[in-house]
Amino acid sequence: MPTTFSSQPYKGTRDFYPENLQKRNYIFNKWRETLVKFGFLEYETSLLENAEIYIAKSGDELGGKQLYNFYDKGDRFVALRPEQTPSLARIVANKFGDLKFPLRWFSIPNCFRYEQPQKGRFREHWQLNVDIIGLQAGGAELEIMNILAELFKSFGATKNEFKIMYNHREVLDIWLVEAGLGEKKSLVYAVLDDWFKLSLEDNKSKLAKGNDEIPGLTDPEIQTIVELTQKTGNSWEKYLKIAHTFPEIELLLNSVSKIQPDVEFDFNPCIIRGIAYYTGVVFEAFDKNPANHRALFGGGRYDNLMELFDKKAPAIGFGFGDATMNEFLTNWNLWPDFENIQIVRVGLMPFSDSDLVKIYNDIIPKLRTEGKTWEIDYDYQRNEEKRWISLKKRGCIEVLKLN
Amino acid sequence: MPTTFSSQPYKGTRDFYPENLQKRNYIFNKWRETLVKFGFLEYETSLLENAEIYIAKSGDELGGKQLYNFYDKGDRFVALRPEQTPSLARIVANKFGDLKFPLRWFSIPNCFRYEQPQKGRFREHWQLNVDIIGLQAGGAELEIMNILAELFKSFGATKNEFKIMYNHREVLDIWLVEAGLGEKKSLVYAVLDDWFKLSLEDNKSKLAKGNDEIPGLTDPEIQTIVELTQKTGNSWEKYLKIAHTFPEIELLLNSVSKIQPDVEFDFNPCIIRGIAYYTGVVFEAFDKNPANHRALFGGGRYDNLMELFDKKAPAIGFGFGDATMNEFLTNWNLWPDFENIQIVRVGLMPFSDSDLVKIYNDIIPKLRTEGKTWEIDYDYQRNEEKRWISLKKRGCIEVLKLN
Repeated sequence: MPTTFSSQPYKGTRDFYPENLQKRNYIFNKWRETLVKFGFLEYETSLLENAEIYIAKSGDELGGKQLYNFYDKGDRFVALRPEQTPSLARIVANKFGDLKFPLRWFSIPNCFRYEQPQKGRFREHWQLNVDIIGLQAGGAELEIMNILAELFKSFGATKNEFKIMYNHREVLDIWLVEAGLGEKKSLVYAVLDDWFKLSLEDNKSKLAKGNDEIPGLTDPEIQTIVELTQKTGNSWEKYLKIAHTFPEIELLLNSVSKIQPDVEFDFNPCIIRGIAYYTGVVFEAFDKNPANHRALFGGGRYDNLMELFDKKAPAIGFGFGDATMNEFLTNWNLWPDFENIQIVRVGLMPFSDSDLVKIYNDIIPKLRTEGKTWEIDYDYQRNEEKRWISLKKRGCIEVLKLN
Repeated sequence: MPTTFSSQPYKGTRDFYPENLQKRNYIFNKWRETLVKFGFLEYETSLLENAEIYIAKSGDELGGKQLYNFYDKGDRFVALRPEQTPSLARIVANKFGDLKFPLRWFSIPNCFRYEQPQKGRFREHWQLNVDIIGLQAGGAELEIMNILAELFKSFGATKNEFKIMYNHREVLDIWLVEAGLGEKKSLVYAVLDDWFKLSLEDNKSKLAKGNDEIPGLTDPEIQTIVELTQKTGNSWEKYLKIAHTFPEIELLLNSVSKIQPDVEFDFNPCIIRGIAYYTGVVFEAFDKNPANHRALFGGGRYDNLMELFDKKAPAIGFGFGDATMNEFLTNWNLWPDFENIQIVRVGLMPFSDSDLVKIYNDIIPKLRTEGKTWEIDYDYQRNEEKRWISLKKRGCIEVLKLN
């Protein structure tokens, strides 16, 4: 009597049966197709990395309680990557002298995070990562926005279904200092980061309350922040004025709607991005379905990350999860009709081993040239009609008897 | 001053830069293409599994010193899969009542083994897994052999470069008993498993020496084994006679060369396969390059594995590593010319931000319809000739100036 085990997948992970993998592969293939067309090259790094890389970014959830880390049998402290960007920085640093910059690269890795599984959130998920390394702020920002828009459009999505919002961390920082809120930056950052998830009243009381380190904002200060988030009045005017001093924002404000007129872009001070290493432009895409407030993906400029590996290169990029994309396509009914794009499957019904030789030598070569797939039923002894029915049930459109 | 880290990959793993990933994707795409044509469906399981599943198969290297196992933050004992088959058995068991058998499935997972890295052997490798679940021994064996042959042929390989060898564990077991060697089975198994790696003299002395549990073979016994491996004399005659009592071997002996006349098959008693769960036919493919003695892949029938998850279904399958395939293609010069199959890349040279709008609105749509890729150079201020040279150096076949 053998020991038996549960057949459930490990908590928070998914088994992709063929019908589910077909959907995931549909997403991956669209991503690949679009990026290759836009001149991007695919790379891949190992899942295992030095765990210290993530822990170095202390205070970050990814490097703390969400990290899958352990000691290997040689006592190396390793982690399953929680995100791709540090690995990208590593391999770029490793061949720094040999690579021809700028790099336009992408990858579709699986990433692991120890978090509470919930709808659309898993402990293992796949994430398209798109990055340009070696270009200063400027045209690269426009190029990335254009690719974002094209990625959505490749699935048939329109401005009714999604919008892309962007911001600039330095603009916000300068504005905060000018508004006399420089000392309260981390509090304002934290509240803005969740702005769309809460009601206006809740946001205001969070600002009023402060936290352990930072006292709450005064009523006029809160009013200033509210004005900013509503993009009205003096606050927003000042914000825009600062923004126009950054050529990459100037470029986006002037041109992004010209090059993608059928996509909604929104320059918005509430876009912050949780990840610590962003330095300039940050952006997120939102599902316009009011029931789905979560950002579909996000990214930004990260000019200092290569310093982890003792190199320096400007960079911009974003990540896009398979589970959120899957949900988006389902919400808006954007899946193709998989049944109809299946290739014709022919059921083959031999009655002896010598029929098998005939099948391989005569029938299969013909089916292959016709682009048809097939499957063979080997139950020679079984009732003919039952064999026919079972092949039909398994999806065979035609059945071919060998006698 | 930030802390910096080594940019080397984790020991025994590979970073796939675009030129290397292109090669790996070439292999994966050929595999997929062939299998989909033959009516197989792709699936994928999570990398993380209950570690006990592998440890249950005690005595096996995969479940012991080679296993990447650890406790997650919720104290679950997990492992990075060292092979795909137990995960396949698990997900089949998990939806046992809903699936329409037989299943013809494949997957290309990465697997982790803590072993000494060496040429063609890594701690993380990818492995094509092809399985038929729900078919008793018989036509399924021929079908699997046919797919093996087709997989090789899809890369342009011929009988000059590889051969497929097969055996049957029960045939060997019966023969050993009849030869009076039933008690020494595990010793003979171990020696036969490495037969092609050592000289005849070394093999004979291993048989003569025995091991801690089993005394060495007598000279006449050794002679019997040598005869068997050389497929001569009485030993081999008896072996063939037993073999013909198994219909699936009868079928392979009669038909496999008829359906694949341009591929070399060899029914050979030295094919054992290390993995413990095989129950019937076992097979391996060998590179004919005398400098490369390792099996290219292997597989077999495993009718009892589903019992791990308290289900029962006959099964046959094989695994095929990316690294060995890569080496094989390199050894025999079977790679396509990747340079020539690249799509034309056009270098675009704007001189202002307004040129960018022109690029996105007028030029890129045209390039897309022509199936060309492009890249934009943003160094407006730089010397024109230098910009032209750097675009050329980066692989642009044409350069388009915007003024």
